[in-house]
Amino acid sequence: MQMNSIQKLFGIQYPIVQGGMIWCSGWKLASAVSNAGGLGLIGAGSMYPDVFREHVKKCKEATQKPFGVNIPLIYPQTEDLIDIILKEKVPVVFTSAGSPKKYTGLLKENGIKVAHVIANSKFAVKCEEAGVDAIVAEGFEAGGHNGYEETTSMALIPAVRRETDIPLIAAGGIATGRGMLAAMALGADGVQIGSRFAATKESSAHDNFKQAIVQAKEGDTMLSIKKLIPVRLIKNTFQQEISEMEFNGASNEELVEKLGKGRAKLGMFEGDSEEGEFEIGQISSIIDSIQPAGKVVEKIITEYKEALNDIQSFKSL
Amino acid sequence: MQMNSIQKLFGIQYPIVQGGMIWCSGWKLASAVSNAGGLGLIGAGSMYPDVFREHVKKCKEATQKPFGVNIPLIYPQTEDLIDIILKEKVPVVFTSAGSPKKYTGLLKENGIKVAHVIANSKFAVKCEEAGVDAIVAEGFEAGGHNGYEETTSMALIPAVRRETDIPLIAAGGIATGRGMLAAMALGADGVQIGSRFAATKESSAHDNFKQAIVQAKEGDTMLSIKKLIPVRLIKNTFQQEISEMEFNGASNEELVEKLGKGRAKLGMFEGDSEEGEFEIGQISSIIDSIQPAGKVVEKIITEYKEALNDIQSFKSL
Repeated sequence: MQMNSIQKLFGIQYPIVQGGMIWCSGWKLASAVSNAGGLGLIGAGSMYPDVFREHVKKCKEATQKPFGVNIPLIYPQTEDLIDIILKEKVPVVFTSAGSPKKYTGLLKENGIKVAHVIANSKFAVKCEEAGVDAIVAEGFEAGGHNGYEETTSMALIPAVRRETDIPLIAAGGIATGRGMLAAMALGADGVQIGSRFAATKESSAHDNFKQAIVQAKEGDTMLSIKKLIPVRLIKNTFQQEISEMEFNGASNEELVEKLGKGRAKLGMFEGDSEEGEFEIGQISSIIDSIQPAGKVVEKIITEYKEALNDIQSFKSL
Repeated sequence: MQMNSIQKLFGIQYPIVQGGMIWCSGWKLASAVSNAGGLGLIGAGSMYPDVFREHVKKCKEATQKPFGVNIPLIYPQTEDLIDIILKEKVPVVFTSAGSPKKYTGLLKENGIKVAHVIANSKFAVKCEEAGVDAIVAEGFEAGGHNGYEETTSMALIPAVRRETDIPLIAAGGIATGRGMLAAMALGADGVQIGSRFAATKESSAHDNFKQAIVQAKEGDTMLSIKKLIPVRLIKNTFQQEISEMEFNGASNEELVEKLGKGRAKLGMFEGDSEEGEFEIGQISSIIDSIQPAGKVVEKIITEYKEALNDIQSFKSL
């Protein structure tokens, strides 16, 4: 079987990475995706180090296949997480929200594969210089925290592809096999899928959040709180109120006060649909059901093959 | 030769439509694209009726192939343009910025093919009800005026595709054959390309604008003036000043006053790089040269075939 760079790099059957999402992706989701032939990621961003260690241990018990973790480098106890990763011999680490120079060397010396998330080609080049094994290029349509330049996947993937040859994973706006084929056509070697996996049985998100994903239509998410740190949220009372403040020229201090602490947990984990944050991507508009994660992987691959077949049958150019 | 729905509908060799752009697409550009096998559009939005009539007549002399016009329905003398279209027997009309119910019936009774531009699937359904022949789904990354919901092409194309079966043209973020293949993978039957054709020899834009497109990098455009009517512009003095005002909570009246009249003409036609508007899409970041329009069409088709070939050789799924 011929394998592409992402399949070879991670030793996985399908070049599908499940995004490491706060409050959604613990060991259950990560191991389910890895067992289905993709690469599951534990989202460390919402875990205390002890909780994180537990998830890593349980994930190792639940799958014999490669899995990984996602670490936002703004996490206050990153050093502790890195220690756990090294001790537990986690095979793959995705880093984001910080410099890829900081830990890539150490992780690679320990035989760990490293990918870093970026939102423009300038940072893609910096990742290559830092020696990462793969880049995740995340477009404006993605859920959660996002870049300031607002470059969408259609524009970002080809821009990054022409600046670097290292393995490229596209993220943002992908939930189906057709989306995956589009990303590959634009030059990606694999895809990272978040929203679709947030609405799975194995996702640890609150059911209110999963239902909100299923019900979301186009225009129901908005990149919000841009003056502080842009985050794509489902529109609800909190999102509308803070956007209104921003629209009317509120200061950063006022926005920080309004945001308060724990909004993401309040929404995604505790299920407060109005006062909490529901971080999700635009592609939620075409997600209609809560499925087991393994079925999602299977369906994406089936759709991918069908789409490839459709495209091939269009011979007239 | 097997042809798809867009090729059949317009009677064109390639399912590539050149976007009808103000100050860029007169008869020279439209006829060059049509002669190269695509569908060229005259952008009526920046033309007085008499000027428009001249462009239509010259376009008919310059090409034997189908061509069309784009009419923003907010244009103050739309009735006059429609009269000219009927008298001159323009074969194809793209309408935007208004209700597709208004003129679709009249145009179709006169044997004219009608497409309408939308930015969400709700309006796509309204277009189908109004009897249009095709829909243009325009994503957030597109240049010029844009929707309020900010849905990107990756999310918009599949969302529209599942709501309607009528011929679908994807717009926004497409400048290459790889972009075209991605749009087709997502469910489009054809593509509308603007930015790439704005930077051609036949484009009537000022050379300063063409050079700005060639020089633009990721993050150099921004969807701006959202409180009035969102428009994607290259960042310059005017764009920065009005964005700053908006950021600080300026009123609509203050923004209207700052905008003034004729900003688009001042920029795109007269070449004022600092005080004028340069309306262009995000994909300008990968446009590096000013080419003849026919060469652009040819290159897109070559790239499309290459990309299809690359994708086909990836057999491992």
